[in-house]
Amino acid sequence: MLTIKSHSHDYKVEPYSSLGAALRTVTALERAHFLIDAEIARLYADELAQAVVPERTVIVPASEEQKSFEVLTPIFLQLLQAGLKRDGNLVVVGGGVVQDIGCFIASVLFRGLRWELVPTTLLAQADSCIGSKSSINIGSYKNQIGTFYPPHRVLLVVAVLATLPPDEIRSGMGEIIKLQLLKGEEDFRELMTDLQEFQGGLGTVEKWVLRSMAVKQPYIEEDEYDRGVRNLLNYGHTFGHAYESATHYGIPHGIAVTLGILTATFVSVELGFVPAAHYQELKRLLAPWHSPYGGLLRAASSTGIFQAIRHDKKNTGDAVNCILTRGPGRMEKIKVRFQEELVPAVSRFLATETT
Amino acid sequence: MLTIKSHSHDYKVEPYSSLGAALRTVTALERAHFLIDAEIARLYADELAQAVVPERTVIVPASEEQKSFEVLTPIFLQLLQAGLKRDGNLVVVGGGVVQDIGCFIASVLFRGLRWELVPTTLLAQADSCIGSKSSINIGSYKNQIGTFYPPHRVLLVVAVLATLPPDEIRSGMGEIIKLQLLKGEEDFRELMTDLQEFQGGLGTVEKWVLRSMAVKQPYIEEDEYDRGVRNLLNYGHTFGHAYESATHYGIPHGIAVTLGILTATFVSVELGFVPAAHYQELKRLLAPWHSPYGGLLRAASSTGIFQAIRHDKKNTGDAVNCILTRGPGRMEKIKVRFQEELVPAVSRFLATETT
Repeated sequence: MLTIKSHSHDYKVEPYSSLGAALRTVTALERAHFLIDAEIARLYADELAQAVVPERTVIVPASEEQKSFEVLTPIFLQLLQAGLKRDGNLVVVGGGVVQDIGCFIASVLFRGLRWELVPTTLLAQADSCIGSKSSINIGSYKNQIGTFYPPHRVLLVVAVLATLPPDEIRSGMGEIIKLQLLKGEEDFRELMTDLQEFQGGLGTVEKWVLRSMAVKQPYIEEDEYDRGVRNLLNYGHTFGHAYESATHYGIPHGIAVTLGILTATFVSVELGFVPAAHYQELKRLLAPWHSPYGGLLRAASSTGIFQAIRHDKKNTGDAVNCILTRGPGRMEKIKVRFQEELVPAVSRFLATETT
Repeated sequence: MLTIKSHSHDYKVEPYSSLGAALRTVTALERAHFLIDAEIARLYADELAQAVVPERTVIVPASEEQKSFEVLTPIFLQLLQAGLKRDGNLVVVGGGVVQDIGCFIASVLFRGLRWELVPTTLLAQADSCIGSKSSINIGSYKNQIGTFYPPHRVLLVVAVLATLPPDEIRSGMGEIIKLQLLKGEEDFRELMTDLQEFQGGLGTVEKWVLRSMAVKQPYIEEDEYDRGVRNLLNYGHTFGHAYESATHYGIPHGIAVTLGILTATFVSVELGFVPAAHYQELKRLLAPWHSPYGGLLRAASSTGIFQAIRHDKKNTGDAVNCILTRGPGRMEKIKVRFQEELVPAVSRFLATETT
């Protein structure tokens, strides 16, 4: 059991053996309302039927369109019409998209409603369930609206990962890889050793879920609002976000991050921050975790990629803020000149490294 | 100059002699975008033209419909399309409705954007410009969505009150009366003396704007999130909100609060908290400040009024939380039984006191 400090309220991450066991512990069950990922609702219908009141349940498909400001209205209204009150509790069961929707709603409904989160993807469990952030799209602007408002409890059920498709596991692994690279050489190598024996079951996944949260915790506690050291958690993300956008979300987020990590490392080599050998080793180790999406990236418009990098919400002027690396555990935020430095290096990466 | 403490960031209230003088001090003017009340844009077109860039300006009519979650999307998109970035500044010029919209947008855009507020109504200047709250409607649910996110600066231009219609002055006075009643006997009597000589010019208004903020400040600093002592600022509001709702917003907010103060005092008499003489005196003193809206209230559906009281977001069960009074400076939060106590007392008030 982990306790995370937050400006809003501290919260615990509590492990449970099954979805049913977790949901039986929901606070104020008689006033609880549920927001549930459509796929989870289908796969775990029987277990959910034991714990969840249908009249107080909203089912949400986990698609990028659902994460839009424009489509939040019916969800708010369903919750209010079902009688959700300010002393209620919004129980959110799902991955990143449903978490984003639930977090945003909880943060603005009644100026802040209690909510509890059961993350159901590897990415949500190892990474996004802690850290307070919600991200909502509006029009063609991605993730420009959001809040900092952590759940009041995280109910961690590693067992639900068993029903995830392989790409969802690889997507979560992108953030796990990033966090262990941030931690340092030793942890990263231990992860790589475990991953070489990974056969698609849950294996050592629970260990790395917990280890990833442990790496993330000090960053979000020290800099919850992401104005300083937390920026380092964006390692691989400036590029990853651009790859998602330029492929119209054809690459799962965490896999785009894995490709983004490789890009950031390649750029770090080009700018003289790290020896080429580090990139070459990462390239070899991470290949199984992004293949064959490199091909999708090669087919994407490089104009689209560079536009997305420029429009990333973290950029405020003509230089681009990148998290570059001097090696495992040695990431730094660097202003990279867009035309002179970034475009040539990333173009070379896209041309030669995405085969 | 006042400095207000907030969980999010401290902020100053700075007086200026004119709208132009205030706007010339806007932070990062080259990255500032403007959200301006349509009526202010019309009345102060020349002064605004000196300070405001049209391409970075959104004009908003100050209507209850504009304050809806459903109609925020085009405003967000206009701001983003005009190039507002996370290092920008949203300058909000208007009264309560425009403030609510601007505050909500600033609190969720880029997970929190700098914003500066020029309150242009008496109610906004004396009361709502400090305290961090935004309130947004959704569907038929009023003020159920919102955030706590104060402006980074409040630019106070008392001179703009000169162009307000008389009912807007009386509306602001409702909150000023409430705050001075909360302060105590002496301040309330001083206000009443000044108001007897009030001839519709600005007169002593600036003094009471500043004195009202001074009363409000300790409540919002001690209990920004409105979980305890700040509740007392809702004196008159449970009834006032219901009167607004039941008359379809035919009564301006602050005037509904004045009627709500009288109701709360009447109920306090009925329940034995305060002598009838206190109510009789308030009734006489406040009459000029709500007439003739008592008539509108008499014509309203009492079913509608009682439904609204029950659905007030501050109520969580079968009893209704009311701020009652034992006299000036002695307000208390009391749970009042709905059917047995509240309905009879308020029915009597509506039947006999709204002539």
